[in-house]
Amino acid sequence: MNKQLIDHYREFLKDNIRQRIDFSQTDQNRRIPPPPLEKPIPEGAETIPLPPLEKAKLAGNIDLWSAIGQRESCRFYSDEPLSLDELSLLLWATQGVRLKLDAGHALRTVPSAGCRHAFETYLCVLNVKGLEKGIYRYLPLEHALLFSHAPDQLEQSIVQATLGQRFTGDAAVTFIWTALPYRMEWRYGLAAHKVIALDAGHVCQNLYLACEAIGAGTCAIAAYHQDGMDELIDVDGKEEFTIYLAPVGKKEA
Amino acid sequence: MNKQLIDHYREFLKDNIRQRIDFSQTDQNRRIPPPPLEKPIPEGAETIPLPPLEKAKLAGNIDLWSAIGQRESCRFYSDEPLSLDELSLLLWATQGVRLKLDAGHALRTVPSAGCRHAFETYLCVLNVKGLEKGIYRYLPLEHALLFSHAPDQLEQSIVQATLGQRFTGDAAVTFIWTALPYRMEWRYGLAAHKVIALDAGHVCQNLYLACEAIGAGTCAIAAYHQDGMDELIDVDGKEEFTIYLAPVGKKEA
Repeated sequence: MNKQLIDHYREFLKDNIRQRIDFSQTDQNRRIPPPPLEKPIPEGAETIPLPPLEKAKLAGNIDLWSAIGQRESCRFYSDEPLSLDELSLLLWATQGVRLKLDAGHALRTVPSAGCRHAFETYLCVLNVKGLEKGIYRYLPLEHALLFSHAPDQLEQSIVQATLGQRFTGDAAVTFIWTALPYRMEWRYGLAAHKVIALDAGHVCQNLYLACEAIGAGTCAIAAYHQDGMDELIDVDGKEEFTIYLAPVGKKEA
Repeated sequence: MNKQLIDHYREFLKDNIRQRIDFSQTDQNRRIPPPPLEKPIPEGAETIPLPPLEKAKLAGNIDLWSAIGQRESCRFYSDEPLSLDELSLLLWATQGVRLKLDAGHALRTVPSAGCRHAFETYLCVLNVKGLEKGIYRYLPLEHALLFSHAPDQLEQSIVQATLGQRFTGDAAVTFIWTALPYRMEWRYGLAAHKVIALDAGHVCQNLYLACEAIGAGTCAIAAYHQDGMDELIDVDGKEEFTIYLAPVGKKEA
């Protein structure tokens, strides 16, 4: 491997960049208002409310040490659909809002550097009771879903966009997280990008554990076709792009 | 902000690099043996066994939805020390080995891209019952600690190395994760670095949740002085360097 190139890439994981940033020039410090907490809901769009948490939590629970001790990557799923209660729990655990502070800040079920939460959550729904197949977006502030579109041959399309990883086509639902990097850059400038990746790991770990509570499993995917995934979920690939995925399904008996 | 530079940094979060890598030339595919699962233990060094999990788990537990729902960033700690049982649980939850497969592969309590687990865990111990103040390293294979060294004025040193974030000096213990990037590069070449950052987020999320089980709290730190931290824990800053930190202490009543 080219040593110089390796060192350049390794630098991304270090925190030297912070020393070179003039933080007085970040958009936050220039008094530019923060970007919104979630992408706007298109005018007139109907949203699909998710079961409230108190009801959803009856679908399952587990003690923390068992969840951590039992968790394993799961690439084989049964044909059993997920229920809306179960999906409600998984979405809340990964990006749910605990408290909205103001137009630009909300506390969620996961931490985020500077409370920036630079993600949107898309779902590739294949086998969820009560939902048509298609691409949806989670609305954390409303704890609801927004239907986006229903591509033809969705199973084949997502397998192709994940470089042939066939378990995305077998999953009940695949979580697809996009990064909206400006939300983090607004505060941190060029020190934004490492922490966005760290944050995405936090989100996905909650998904792994939440799956254990409902007899489901997941296996995160970081190897995918960037343009293919961005096209599949219909994001621009510049101000918003796919960063991480996780197919979910009920475990085989 | 410089648009070109921003785009260059954003690129790190995408998965375009994979298309440009000749995977037949990675060290794994060139049949070079995998790097070891943990840094070697210096000859003659005494290790400190950690309480076995079955005993440690009696120190506390919590159901998953409560852990996720209650978790919040915690920067203020009581003077109460952590017990070794509690520390044993936090280390197991973040990097514990579930199953050793061979000399280069082990399953842990967190997932890792390609099962590479490119981290070591150092502790800055300030207030743990039964341990002297100092820098320690966790040995996941042995579930034990290795004492490293005891810098003078450790509280002041870690506050300085975290750019004045005083809660690192008030914590009972600070988790300091280093990346050993070659462990991941061995398999993925230049596609290694994004997934190392994702993996680090997975690890730290388990720490947040495990803290909830024992009445403790944490607040992850990604802003630190790179050379200062690397010097404090005595790593070379090239093949191994600090990537993420998390101070832990009992919550105030």
